[in-house]
Amino acid sequence: MTLDQAKEKLAAYEKTTFAYEHAMGILYYDGSTAAPRGSAGIRASTLGELARLQYNLTTAPETVEMLETLRAADGLDSITARKVSELWRNYDQTRRIPVDLFVGHQTLCSESEAVWTEAKPANDYAAFAPYLQKIFDSTRAIAACIDPDRDPYNVMLDQYERGLDTDTCDAFFSALRTRLVPLIEEVCAHADRVDDSPLCRHFPIAVQREFSDYLMDVMGIDKNHCIIGETEHPFTANFSRHDVRITTHYYADRLASSLYSVVHEGGHALYELNTAEELVGSALGTGVSMAIHESQSRFYENIIGRSQAFCALIFPWLREHFAPTLDDVDAEQFWRMVNRSTPSCIRTEADELTYALHIMVRYELERKLLAGDLTAADLPEAWRQAYHDYLGIEVPDDRSGVLQDSHWAGGMVGYFPSYAIGSAYGAQFLREMEKTVDVDAAVRFGTLAPINAWFAERIWRHGCMIDPGELFASVCGKFDPMVYTDYLEKKFRGVYGI
Amino acid sequence: MTLDQAKEKLAAYEKTTFAYEHAMGILYYDGSTAAPRGSAGIRASTLGELARLQYNLTTAPETVEMLETLRAADGLDSITARKVSELWRNYDQTRRIPVDLFVGHQTLCSESEAVWTEAKPANDYAAFAPYLQKIFDSTRAIAACIDPDRDPYNVMLDQYERGLDTDTCDAFFSALRTRLVPLIEEVCAHADRVDDSPLCRHFPIAVQREFSDYLMDVMGIDKNHCIIGETEHPFTANFSRHDVRITTHYYADRLASSLYSVVHEGGHALYELNTAEELVGSALGTGVSMAIHESQSRFYENIIGRSQAFCALIFPWLREHFAPTLDDVDAEQFWRMVNRSTPSCIRTEADELTYALHIMVRYELERKLLAGDLTAADLPEAWRQAYHDYLGIEVPDDRSGVLQDSHWAGGMVGYFPSYAIGSAYGAQFLREMEKTVDVDAAVRFGTLAPINAWFAERIWRHGCMIDPGELFASVCGKFDPMVYTDYLEKKFRGVYGI
Repeated sequence: MTLDQAKEKLAAYEKTTFAYEHAMGILYYDGSTAAPRGSAGIRASTLGELARLQYNLTTAPETVEMLETLRAADGLDSITARKVSELWRNYDQTRRIPVDLFVGHQTLCSESEAVWTEAKPANDYAAFAPYLQKIFDSTRAIAACIDPDRDPYNVMLDQYERGLDTDTCDAFFSALRTRLVPLIEEVCAHADRVDDSPLCRHFPIAVQREFSDYLMDVMGIDKNHCIIGETEHPFTANFSRHDVRITTHYYADRLASSLYSVVHEGGHALYELNTAEELVGSALGTGVSMAIHESQSRFYENIIGRSQAFCALIFPWLREHFAPTLDDVDAEQFWRMVNRSTPSCIRTEADELTYALHIMVRYELERKLLAGDLTAADLPEAWRQAYHDYLGIEVPDDRSGVLQDSHWAGGMVGYFPSYAIGSAYGAQFLREMEKTVDVDAAVRFGTLAPINAWFAERIWRHGCMIDPGELFASVCGKFDPMVYTDYLEKKFRGVYGI
Repeated sequence: MTLDQAKEKLAAYEKTTFAYEHAMGILYYDGSTAAPRGSAGIRASTLGELARLQYNLTTAPETVEMLETLRAADGLDSITARKVSELWRNYDQTRRIPVDLFVGHQTLCSESEAVWTEAKPANDYAAFAPYLQKIFDSTRAIAACIDPDRDPYNVMLDQYERGLDTDTCDAFFSALRTRLVPLIEEVCAHADRVDDSPLCRHFPIAVQREFSDYLMDVMGIDKNHCIIGETEHPFTANFSRHDVRITTHYYADRLASSLYSVVHEGGHALYELNTAEELVGSALGTGVSMAIHESQSRFYENIIGRSQAFCALIFPWLREHFAPTLDDVDAEQFWRMVNRSTPSCIRTEADELTYALHIMVRYELERKLLAGDLTAADLPEAWRQAYHDYLGIEVPDDRSGVLQDSHWAGGMVGYFPSYAIGSAYGAQFLREMEKTVDVDAAVRFGTLAPINAWFAERIWRHGCMIDPGELFASVCGKFDPMVYTDYLEKKFRGVYGI
C-alpha cells in the first residue's frame, strides 16, 4: 500500500467509523428521549450489530495495513500523525478483545440500561441486580483481555482518563478527606444559617423550560447546533461540533435541580461545540477525556453557576417569571440557597462541598465490584453502609441509593473519579483564568464570552490532539488538589459566615 | 456455498441490513423531530455513508452467491422463498444503479429535505427550486438505470406500488373525474348547509396532546410500541412491529387538523404494529406497498374517522375537555363539520370528496417534471394553473402551494397516486368487511377491535409475503373504482342532504 493509498483509506475509514458512531449515538439518544418503551429489544440488537461492524472494520487486515503504512511514513502533518497514533491505540486494544465479548458487552449495556430505566422509578433493585452483575463480570473480562497483568480497575480508569490510576485516586481522595471532613462538620454545625426551602416551592415546568432556553443564551450555547431534551437522568450526547444534545429533568418542586443540570451539561456542550472544525468527522473531533470534560461541566455548574455574580445575573429572570413565588427572596439569599451544604442521598443534587464524598462511595464500591470482592446482590447493603460512614445519613430506598445513577447500567465502570478530578482541575483553571480575565466582572456584566474564549483557546479547540494530562499541565502546570480544597474552604466559609 | 451456509449467510445479511435501515430510519426521525437545525449536514453525510455500505452489501459477490444458492434450492419454506425472491429483486434493481448515483441521490434527498424544512415556513420557493430540480434529474437517471426502455414515471410508480402504471392511473383518475366533478359542483351549490367555523375556535395545544393520547387508545394502538411526535408535516416511521412512530402537527385554531393526522397515521401504525412476529427483522416485516398502506390510513381517517358513529364516539371527550368551546355543538353537527367539502389549497386538510383532485394535480405535475417537460422554475405557475383548473381556486402563496408537501423534497416521486388508489381500495374493504362485521355498531360501542381484527387477519399479518395486487384481490376481488365513487356519492348526499 502506498502512502497516498493509505491516506485515502484513512479518509474512507474515518467516514465509515463516523457514520457508525453517529448512528449509535442517535439510537442511544432517541432511546433515552423519544422511543417507545417496547423498542429496547430491537435497539439493543441494532446497536450490537453496529458494534460488530465497527469491530470488524477496526481489526480488518486492510485497516491494519493502512495504519502500519502511515506509522512508517515520515513527515505526516500533526493532525494525521495524531489520528494514526490514536487509531492504532484503539486497534491495539480492540484486537485483544474477542468479537463475541465485544459485541455481547455492547448488547448487554443496551439491555441493562433499558432494565435500569424501568427499575429506578419502580424502586426495583431485584430486577436490575442480575444485569449489574453481568455488567461487572463482562467489564472484568474485557479488562483482562486489554491487559491481563494489570489491576482491571486501573485498566478501566485508563479508558476514561488516560494515565489515571488508583494510586493517584487514593492520594487525591485522601487529601480531600483530610481537608473536607472537618470543614463539612463545621458547616453542619451552622446548618441553620442557610434555608433553601423557597427553592422547593412550586415552579411550573413550562416556565422552567423557558428558563433553560434563557440559560443556554446566557452561556453562549449555539442553539443552531445544540438542543435540549428531557430524560430520567441528564446527560450530553455529542456527534460533532455541528450536533450536540443536552438533557435535563424538571421537578416542579426543585428549582435548582434542572438549573444546575442545564449549566452542567451546557459546560460539556460548550466543549464539544468548540472543537476545531478541521477535526470534525475524525476520532479527534471530540473532548479528550472524561476528567477534562467534567472539569468543564463542573466549572460552569459550580465555579461559575453557583457564584455570587452568576446568581445576581440570573435571579431577576427567576423572580420575574415565577412571580410572586420568589418575591420574598433576594439575589444574595438565592446564592446562599444554591450553595446550601448538607449531606444528602442524591449525587446530582449534592452541593459542591459534599459532592466528592458521593464520588468516594462509588469509587470504593465499583473497585470492589470489579475485583469480585462485592456482588451485585450485596451492593445495596454496602451502599447504605458507605453512605452512613461517609455522609452520616441513612438511605431510605434503592431509588435514592444504588439505583440513582445510570453509569454502571450503561457499562461506565471507572468513570466516577473523573467527576472529582475534574472538579479539582476546575479550581486550578479558575486560578489561571483570573490572571488574565476578570471572571466576576464578566459574569456580572451578563456575558460568559471572555470565559468561553479562554477555554476555547486553551482546551476546547484541541479536541483529542493532546493527551489529557499534558493538556492540563500546559494550562495549569502540576495538578495540586490543595487548590481545590482552598477554593472550597474559602467559598463555604463565605456562604456560612464561619 | 452449501445450502446451510447460504441460510446462515442470509440470516447475517438480514441482521446487517436491518441495522442499517433501523439506523437510517432513526436518523431520519430524529432529524425531523429533535435534531438541531445546524446538524443537517452531518446527518446527510452519515445517511449517505450508510446508504453506500448498504449498496455494497446488497451487490457484494457473496450476497449474490448466497441468493443464487438459495434460488437454486428446492423445498425452501414459504417465508425463506419469499425473502429470496424479494432480495433478488432488490439486488437486480440496485446493481443497475452506479454506486455514486445511488449514494448521491440519498445525500441529495437529505439535503433537499433540510432545505425544504426551512423554505416552507419562509415561503421561499426560490431557495428550494434548485434542489427540487436536482431531485427530479437524479430520479430520472435512476429510473433510466433500472429500466432504460420504460417510461421513467412507470418505473417510479412501480417502486411504490408494484404493478401500477400510468394506464391504470389515467383510467382511474378519469373515472373519478367523471363522477366526482358534477357531485362537487352540486355540493358547492349547497355550501351554506355546513358551517365548520366552530372547529376554528381556540383549542389549547396541551389539551390536543391529551386528545391524541385518547385517540390512540380508541384506535387500539399499543403505546408500548408506538409513540407520537410533532413535526412540520405528519408522517409515520416504522422500524418493526416493536417500534413505530407517528407524528402530527397541532394548530390551536384548527381542531380537525391534528385529529385526522393522528387517525391517518394511526392507520399506518396499526398495519405495521400487526405484521407477523416471524417476519420481524427481515425485508418482509413491513407493509407491502404504499397503496395498501394508504388504504389503511385513509380507511381509518375517513371511512371510520369521519363516520357518524366515530364522531358520536369521540365528541363527548372533545366537548368535555375543551369546555365551554363546543357547548353549542352536538355530535351530528360535528360530523357534518368534519365532512364539510370545499375546494381548498392544502391536500392534508382536504375533505374526502375533493381529495382526489389534489392527487390528480400532483400526478400530472410530477409526470411532467420527471419527463423533463416542466422545470422546477416553472412549477409554481403550473401549480397555480392546475389548482385553478381542477379546484377552481387561487393559490395565495407557495407555502400553501407547491411547498406544502414534503414528498418530492424527500425524493418520493411516484408516491402520490397511492393515496387515491388506497382511498378507493378502502371503499372496497368496507364493502367486504360489512359482510361479516357490524362496523357501525362496533364504532358506536367504542371499540375498533373487530375492525382491527378483520384487517389483521387479511392484510396486516402478511407483511410483504404477498404482492399488493394479489393481496387486494384475495380480499376484495377485482379493483372497481365505482365502489369508491358510489361510497362518496352516498356519503356526501347524506352530509349535505341533497
